[in-house]
Amino acid sequence: MSRKLVVGVPDLTEGDKKQIIEAADRNGFEVEFCTMQEEALPADGEIVFSGSPDFAKNAEKLRWQCSVSAGVNQFKGLPVFENGTALLSNSSGAYGVTIAEHLVMMTLEMLRRQVEFAAAAARKEWHKPLPVKSVYGSRVTFAGTGDIGFETAKRIRAFEPAALYGVNRKGRNPENLFDRIYTQEQIEEVLPQTDILIISMPGTEETFHMLDEKRLALLPDGALIVNVGRGFIIDEAALLPELTAGRLAAALDVFETEPLPADNPLWDCPNLLILPHVAGNMTLPHTREKIVAQFLEDFDNYCAGRPLLRQVDLKAGY
Amino acid sequence: MSRKLVVGVPDLTEGDKKQIIEAADRNGFEVEFCTMQEEALPADGEIVFSGSPDFAKNAEKLRWQCSVSAGVNQFKGLPVFENGTALLSNSSGAYGVTIAEHLVMMTLEMLRRQVEFAAAAARKEWHKPLPVKSVYGSRVTFAGTGDIGFETAKRIRAFEPAALYGVNRKGRNPENLFDRIYTQEQIEEVLPQTDILIISMPGTEETFHMLDEKRLALLPDGALIVNVGRGFIIDEAALLPELTAGRLAAALDVFETEPLPADNPLWDCPNLLILPHVAGNMTLPHTREKIVAQFLEDFDNYCAGRPLLRQVDLKAGY
Repeated sequence: MSRKLVVGVPDLTEGDKKQIIEAADRNGFEVEFCTMQEEALPADGEIVFSGSPDFAKNAEKLRWQCSVSAGVNQFKGLPVFENGTALLSNSSGAYGVTIAEHLVMMTLEMLRRQVEFAAAAARKEWHKPLPVKSVYGSRVTFAGTGDIGFETAKRIRAFEPAALYGVNRKGRNPENLFDRIYTQEQIEEVLPQTDILIISMPGTEETFHMLDEKRLALLPDGALIVNVGRGFIIDEAALLPELTAGRLAAALDVFETEPLPADNPLWDCPNLLILPHVAGNMTLPHTREKIVAQFLEDFDNYCAGRPLLRQVDLKAGY
Repeated sequence: MSRKLVVGVPDLTEGDKKQIIEAADRNGFEVEFCTMQEEALPADGEIVFSGSPDFAKNAEKLRWQCSVSAGVNQFKGLPVFENGTALLSNSSGAYGVTIAEHLVMMTLEMLRRQVEFAAAAARKEWHKPLPVKSVYGSRVTFAGTGDIGFETAKRIRAFEPAALYGVNRKGRNPENLFDRIYTQEQIEEVLPQTDILIISMPGTEETFHMLDEKRLALLPDGALIVNVGRGFIIDEAALLPELTAGRLAAALDVFETEPLPADNPLWDCPNLLILPHVAGNMTLPHTREKIVAQFLEDFDNYCAGRPLLRQVDLKAGY
């Protein structure tokens, strides 16, 4: 009986499927493409290529799952990964381009009061000019300097900010792009010098409520926060009064509870731009193509007994 | 009797006014700051620093007006400039930063379907993902490569487009930033190779309806037009059916008639993002500071009998 590769990835093109089938043939695997209806999930895959953790709940043969997401906290606590029966890898590296474009857009929209102008245009009103701000001359801090933070910082650099700061776990400065790097432990030093805070850190125990009431208070008046990491990195209950008072502004694509519940007060909060977790989905063709290419690269590695390039350490959380 | 400098510029800070007064003292001028109510305009200024053409209609002593705008077509036909009695200069060079941020924002908003997401958020709806596009891998053409086009292209370059093309009158390639330059006469060659068209040309007789029905049809399906030049550069009547059909998309800050009349069909047009001519106003402090600094530089030039750095050729229109 042949070994099975289960693929549960939405919106694959015929070209993507062809590439996957060819790689499977080459490596002695049969492929099952499936939708992600939980009741119909195949349980006999040795390899699963999907962002859903549901496959791994009841899959005795599973030895490797490649997630199409970059963040993997949805896989936390699954025995098959925790006890080492199966490997877990992610699609880190595929989202830098699309999320960087999202982050620059959200930053500019908040600086340039775009929500107010768009609301006026929807009412067919020719709105008077409003005071705006710019990336030019601002101090921009990246909490997270991995693929997403790095690609975004490269683009933000072209807007001539006054300074680019980075915050990461190990204090490294990729390609010396940042004017100064702070470790996560030093974040309270950089917050008072931050006009724009761009968060792309993974969701881990360490980053849970990393921005709490005390740290939010360290940001200068008028600072802007843009978050694509995980919602719980910011304590929303502490952020809400800062936005309501107009002391801070924020653009959020991620929330502590998603979908954001209809009765959540953030919906009515001023100085806040809400997107429904779409910064890094696979709707940009480049992203989908890169996810498939990276999977195929690691598929060959797996079959040849080589280490996976994007294996996740579930304890570290990324 | 002393010579008079009339300043009709909104939102000047006390610091700006102090600088202007000091320069006037140094050069033997008295300064009158005024609001721009037409019935109260001083008629005895030798120099006027204002974007309004009204000062020049009835000002016998006028010898130089410095406009706070970059475009100057509002000054066309005023005898005092046409007959050479007074010089006219503009504030070209002050708007590159703010308009570049606007143009990148508008481009990304259209590529990423931000209007639809914002409308859903206003209804408190968690919208599903939508297919998006990116600057990455796109061919971007700049119609106009002056200060605004150049500053925008520098920023767009960081997003790794497939190609950056420029269109200008003289065929020059500033700092070799563009992969290829076309003259205005060659624009029909570049349109079929353009995914994103960014227009920052001045409004002149040459650029009137530069994008007419025939040329719009040369753009490939799905192309995006972003215009901050003058509204009449695009034939709106020809653009409307292209947007309605979904063949093209556009983000416009300028219109053939401004304010855009309440009954203009563009208000209800799909695939169109409307802003009320705010890309380049003086509400960004950096812009206002640079306009004042550039005026003061030319004020010293004028008083010393040196040529003005930003003198406008009204026949050429810029």
